[in-house]
Amino acid sequence: MAKTRVGIINVTGYAGIELARLLWGHPEVKLTSVTGRSAAGHKLDDYFPHLAGTGLTIKEKLGECDLVFSAMPHKDSVAVIAPLLESGLKVVDISADFRLKDAAAYPLWYGFAHPLPNLLSQAVFGLPELHRDRIKKARLVANPGCYPTGAILALAPAVKEGIIGPDIVIDSKSGISGAGRTLNLTTHFAEADEDATAYALGGHRHLPEIVQELAALRPEPVPAVTFVPHLIPMTRGILTTAYATLTPGRLAEGSQGEEELLALYRDFYKNEPFVRVIGTSPHTKHTRGSNFCLIHPAIDHRTGRLCVIAAIDNLVKGAAGQAIQNMNLMLGLPETTGLTAPALFP
Amino acid sequence: MAKTRVGIINVTGYAGIELARLLWGHPEVKLTSVTGRSAAGHKLDDYFPHLAGTGLTIKEKLGECDLVFSAMPHKDSVAVIAPLLESGLKVVDISADFRLKDAAAYPLWYGFAHPLPNLLSQAVFGLPELHRDRIKKARLVANPGCYPTGAILALAPAVKEGIIGPDIVIDSKSGISGAGRTLNLTTHFAEADEDATAYALGGHRHLPEIVQELAALRPEPVPAVTFVPHLIPMTRGILTTAYATLTPGRLAEGSQGEEELLALYRDFYKNEPFVRVIGTSPHTKHTRGSNFCLIHPAIDHRTGRLCVIAAIDNLVKGAAGQAIQNMNLMLGLPETTGLTAPALFP
Amino acid sequence: MAKTRVGIINVTGYAGIELARLLWGHPEVKLTSVTGRSAAGHKLDDYFPHLAGTGLTIKEKLGECDLVFSAMPHKDSVAVIAPLLESGLKVVDISADFRLKDAAAYPLWYGFAHPLPNLLSQAVFGLPELHRDRIKKARLVANPGCYPTGAILALAPAVKEGIIGPDIVIDSKSGISGAGRTLNLTTHFAEADEDATAYALGGHRHLPEIVQELAALRPEPVPAVTFVPHLIPMTRGILTTAYATLTPGRLAEGSQGEEELLALYRDFYKNEPFVRVIGTSPHTKHTRGSNFCLIHPAIDHRTGRLCVIAAIDNLVKGAAGQAIQNMNLMLGLPETTGLTAPALFP
Amino acid sequence: MAKTRVGIINVTGYAGIELARLLWGHPEVKLTSVTGRSAAGHKLDDYFPHLAGTGLTIKEKLGECDLVFSAMPHKDSVAVIAPLLESGLKVVDISADFRLKDAAAYPLWYGFAHPLPNLLSQAVFGLPELHRDRIKKARLVANPGCYPTGAILALAPAVKEGIIGPDIVIDSKSGISGAGRTLNLTTHFAEADEDATAYALGGHRHLPEIVQELAALRPEPVPAVTFVPHLIPMTRGILTTAYATLTPGRLAEGSQGEEELLALYRDFYKNEPFVRVIGTSPHTKHTRGSNFCLIHPAIDHRTGRLCVIAAIDNLVKGAAGQAIQNMNLMLGLPETTGLTAPALFP
Repeated sequence: MAKTRVGIINVTGYAGIELARLLWGHPEVKLTSVTGRSAAGHKLDDYFPHLAGTGLTIKEKLGECDLVFSAMPHKDSVAVIAPLLESGLKVVDISADFRLKDAAAYPLWYGFAHPLPNLLSQAVFGLPELHRDRIKKARLVANPGCYPTGAILALAPAVKEGIIGPDIVIDSKSGISGAGRTLNLTTHFAEADEDATAYALGGHRHLPEIVQELAALRPEPVPAVTFVPHLIPMTRGILTTAYATLTPGRLAEGSQGEEELLALYRDFYKNEPFVRVIGTSPHTKHTRGSNFCLIHPAIDHRTGRLCVIAAIDNLVKGAAGQAIQNMNLMLGLPETTGLTAPALFP
Repeated sequence: MAKTRVGIINVTGYAGIELARLLWGHPEVKLTSVTGRSAAGHKLDDYFPHLAGTGLTIKEKLGECDLVFSAMPHKDSVAVIAPLLESGLKVVDISADFRLKDAAAYPLWYGFAHPLPNLLSQAVFGLPELHRDRIKKARLVANPGCYPTGAILALAPAVKEGIIGPDIVIDSKSGISGAGRTLNLTTHFAEADEDATAYALGGHRHLPEIVQELAALRPEPVPAVTFVPHLIPMTRGILTTAYATLTPGRLAEGSQGEEELLALYRDFYKNEPFVRVIGTSPHTKHTRGSNFCLIHPAIDHRTGRLCVIAAIDNLVKGAAGQAIQNMNLMLGLPETTGLTAPALFP
Repeated sequence: MAKTRVGIINVTGYAGIELARLLWGHPEVKLTSVTGRSAAGHKLDDYFPHLAGTGLTIKEKLGECDLVFSAMPHKDSVAVIAPLLESGLKVVDISADFRLKDAAAYPLWYGFAHPLPNLLSQAVFGLPELHRDRIKKARLVANPGCYPTGAILALAPAVKEGIIGPDIVIDSKSGISGAGRTLNLTTHFAEADEDATAYALGGHRHLPEIVQELAALRPEPVPAVTFVPHLIPMTRGILTTAYATLTPGRLAEGSQGEEELLALYRDFYKNEPFVRVIGTSPHTKHTRGSNFCLIHPAIDHRTGRLCVIAAIDNLVKGAAGQAIQNMNLMLGLPETTGLTAPALFP
Repeated sequence: MAKTRVGIINVTGYAGIELARLLWGHPEVKLTSVTGRSAAGHKLDDYFPHLAGTGLTIKEKLGECDLVFSAMPHKDSVAVIAPLLESGLKVVDISADFRLKDAAAYPLWYGFAHPLPNLLSQAVFGLPELHRDRIKKARLVANPGCYPTGAILALAPAVKEGIIGPDIVIDSKSGISGAGRTLNLTTHFAEADEDATAYALGGHRHLPEIVQELAALRPEPVPAVTFVPHLIPMTRGILTTAYATLTPGRLAEGSQGEEELLALYRDFYKNEPFVRVIGTSPHTKHTRGSNFCLIHPAIDHRTGRLCVIAAIDNLVKGAAGQAIQNMNLMLGLPETTGLTAPALFP
């Protein structure tokens, strides 16, 4: 039987080449087409020597495919995707263009009016742990942002089960590949190395995704989320530390409360192949190159606060790996196909 | 006039050698004696080639001094310091042995009964921005911990002026030198490089210092502080992100609120030589090797929360630099003497 | 058909856990047994959470296997391996205990008299690019050291073809995982980060391996090799820069000489699945996590010198990956089985 | 007495701001003027917050000065410097425009015909260890390149004393700040982090400087130098490893040869305030932020080769610090003024 043919639009960013890396090892689909703009005409390994084995050439136009990943920047992605959907392809969009359900959020957060708001309701937010059944039937999946993936997974059980109040602080620490391949002083080695900083204090674009998904888990009370992303000097990984006030009386006092909390999280994720709820603080390095999310829920007994730590690889579970997980679901393949490699440690 | 003679007890840790580095360039005192245990008998530059210029030899016993820094581990430090105070020396203690006013906190947080609780009230908590006048007259100064230095400076104006409620979350990201020179898998390069993790979720020893000092600024309501330290892959620097709920009605809406906040912080620190209140998120790299603390107070208008970012070098303002700042005050020297070097950037 | 059962002795070092990572994804063998000393009794993921999927427990004694990898330290390895060979197992030894053909070299370089010198001639030096046919028939393969792998591959074509004289300088830059998991100030993050240094100037233990293999390629004249290893602040990777004087008249002048050189190297490695001869200087990051060796041979026309740059991942082609490549050959499997994953970039 | 007024042309690169940092702490001169092009009109700390204390504003035109540093790119620097010399200023040029004595080298290595070849003979190559007396009288000093500083200091004693033959290999490992502040994929954090690579295999522009200076030390035989620079993932520092064949009979056999070598090097540098000849391999981290060069000469007895390791901070002894050392000499100040700070370690 012929393998499903998949393509990557705009392969030349970090999400794009990570898709190519992972798809190359995928046993059930065949990466047949990769596109780029300025790089068109070049062999993929002219730009990315580690992908020499693929033998692919970057083209200006997408070849024949059954499913396509768009790694275009936001705003450009919707324009590219619409005709593909028309022609019957399945699409996983890595950009933010279909993540938000509320069209009015696009001018506010992304600075453009969404040209195809009707598509927003058709698109499924591609976090399999929350929307697996809908993803399976979807033709258009909006792959979550890297920060939202860690933050939502860290908080979903607590929000869903109502063990926390609405006041939530999310403090995320990201490796610098999250800022992409575009050159910038912020990502210039001599400035970023040995440095830590916060950014987007006025509101990061990933905030509305986080709020949308948490609010959908438990409509009342509406979560009041402060989200502050930080850049730290490593290439891959996001460590998310989420804080919220525990609803009094829901968990036992002392260490029994911690056991109940762990049990609640483990139960919530009991069938999840890529979420591991663990009893100690996770390390991003234990997820590097893999599609796993490690979660440690803890209690600050002095203040009655929940504190959850989550670790992912921003380019895998936070982007390309999750996109393939979504693809597997859309194609009726076992969800973990091509995604079982352990992390590269050390 | 003869320069004041100063000594360092247990020079062989990172705080100790940073003291030696900074004292070597200090124009008004003379570093005359450095001690160590296993290293005794060796020249200082056998262990630390960058200090070759000092010509000092590590001795087992302290030589004649007028003021001494103790860089002993906690519990050992108090035993060493007591006889020095008896003999009339002034002492700056880098350990935690005199930081907490409540003797009962020592068994709880440090696992030993304080042998000289009477000294706790004589010791002054060495954060010059809060206790300058008392430090000037002190014979025993307890140098603050690295995390508390950033956290307290980030929050002091807001707590003192009552613009926030008692619920406070402090999320700190530390360079790995903060874990000291003792070997450990946590600080083994191949494990710590390219990794981020949280630790001490059950309660870090620096928490009681933070609470003690914030509570002293405004007794009611007692702050409910959650403090989570993180290790990130860099050698020096602590970035602290502190979150608290703004008391309604104290600051204006919108950007005017931010101006008022900035003004409030600038006013609080207006005479401080080592605190810079800035309008953008600080970088730890802009403090590296220097005694400065950079603070950016911001407002999350969506949730009515204060978010303050503070950057320090954990070994300078977080340890050795602050100790020298305290020494300057104790000796009646201009406070900035020997501490004016800009950060080493990049 | 039942899969071949393989085991790892002393899984708890970096070579050991990298073997476990790669074997776990190998489709034709089954990792059934892993041993350790102090870690015996623990689940593998208690120590290495990234290997949680394996479900393995570290045992004191090896279970039933058909082939075993020994990741014991040198001197201990030979003692463990001898009885395994007796009992009919095939063995790949990661240690140095069987790399050198000359028993007299062991007291000199490793400080112990080899207890089983007769085995040395049976052992095959496991560099498939030079000894493939013998490896296929071997029962005991001595996996090469990390530095020798890069150095020998960089120089083999030039030595074999006699285009260089005997004077060879090898300058290698290694990531810090090469120093292993044993704690040491040299590998303490705060000391190793942002630092570069040379070591073993009196002669590194990998030198005799390099000389042995180069001399075997062309007996006369005996190569006079200076080898200086360096530690640089990254976790994985070795970049080797090898220098030698070109034999006059063997390559054309100017750019044609470079083309001839490239052709000579490409011809030498034309059937090698894991060696890529490229036209620009390689990056270690393009090999990270993969079994590839990237080689760039160049000419310094001003001085008539050959300059070859080679990049590998020290834990993969320099250790665990090459060991599995050897295993594949010993078991009659396709040589690349389980080793085709591209590098993890960025 | 009024302090000498100094200025920096094009302060906005890494050499420029490092000059500003060091001059700010210099007790005998006053930094009165800094210029820039796109940054003109801004306060210096808008761009470089660590320099907030200086209070300087970046201007388009140079203010009144007695001595000026030009940190302009090559080719532009000569155009700026000529009129300054005319007007009587003393100049230290950080660019390469006056380093080479042979005007014909400029088109070859830098791609432009030198417009003022007559000035080349007036300019003094600013390596005080070799040209101190001429620097003292110079009006125009050409500050050496970062690589040549380490390489020449590593080899000068051996070349001068004739203990090595003409065949020299120089393998240098540089931190990434050496590539400047201009954005580039090579210096993009996610690509440069955890990577090592060689570059400029066809010939680096610093090679003619190295050859010129070594040849001047001992005219015959003309050194045949292969120089290969490498980028390694750290911000500051250059580690240079230099290899050459020892002239037979000049040094004793065995460890006595090493003592003679060490004595020869120590004698050569016996009056040098910034060169330390040491008995073990140096670490770049022991020079970071300081003007010291650490040199370890060693012998590979197996091959009769000299192997010298030298460590510097590329931005201090390799650029700004050395420029100030030159300035001190030109102004008749003690050579070490403002340059005595130990390295920032760890």
